[in-house]
Amino acid sequence: MNYDTDNIFAKILRGEIPATRVYEDSETLVFMDIMPRADGHILVIPKTPCRNVLDATPDQLTAVMKTVQKMSRALMSCFDADGITLQQFNEAAGGQEVFHLHFHLLPRQAGDHLRAPGTMGDQGVIQKNAEKIRNTLLEL
Amino acid sequence: MNYDTDNIFAKILRGEIPATRVYEDSETLVFMDIMPRADGHILVIPKTPCRNVLDATPDQLTAVMKTVQKMSRALMSCFDADGITLQQFNEAAGGQEVFHLHFHLLPRQAGDHLRAPGTMGDQGVIQKNAEKIRNTLLEL
Repeated sequence: MNYDTDNIFAKILRGEIPATRVYEDSETLVFMDIMPRADGHILVIPKTPCRNVLDATPDQLTAVMKTVQKMSRALMSCFDADGITLQQFNEAAGGQEVFHLHFHLLPRQAGDHLRAPGTMGDQGVIQKNAEKIRNTLLEL
Repeated sequence: MNYDTDNIFAKILRGEIPATRVYEDSETLVFMDIMPRADGHILVIPKTPCRNVLDATPDQLTAVMKTVQKMSRALMSCFDADGITLQQFNEAAGGQEVFHLHFHLLPRQAGDHLRAPGTMGDQGVIQKNAEKIRNTLLEL
């Protein structure tokens, strides 16, 4: 499978379309999911092209997991969460909709229920949660 | 959160209880999930103790993801799969039931539906799928 340089996340990385960014380092970018299944639902992606886990380089996987861990810890603190659910989809049959490697990080509360996928979130709530995450990262 | 050395996967690693193993290297072990949500559902774990992504070391995450990728590629080939769904749960609220870091790898077919969680699989089918995975790894 080839990497499509016109996928939405490639456009976000190039700054061609907006995203609510909460963190970046030299190798990875983190932004809010626009269809959050839980408050604080974020996506972690590598800055360099790869389609998913099947074609990623070892360095891409290492960099992404380092940021996944950093952000998981931040979400636990930021939302006083009881847990984190990670999801990562490979190819359409695996659940993938944007073909640039990404991990979903979902802060969880005991007894909560994830919202159904595919529903646009309230932008005001998303912006507020992004601000909380950015502030948490400053304190850690 | 502390690591409980009596968790089921710690016992599997010590050989105190059985598991249907399909792969191991110096740092990771892979075995069949006994409650498969899809045919070929496997678990990848580090051989060293950690509870989940929140307390894992960088080396543990790197080793686990290397094996996750190797096994994802093997599952695609072995089951002529159309995709792979990865799930990883942190703490009970995040979906975690065994408190030793593990990634779920689910081979997917276009249009399939995952089976509900929590149902024991047919051991004959699990053993047959394990054999297929082992044979695929020999050929790769």
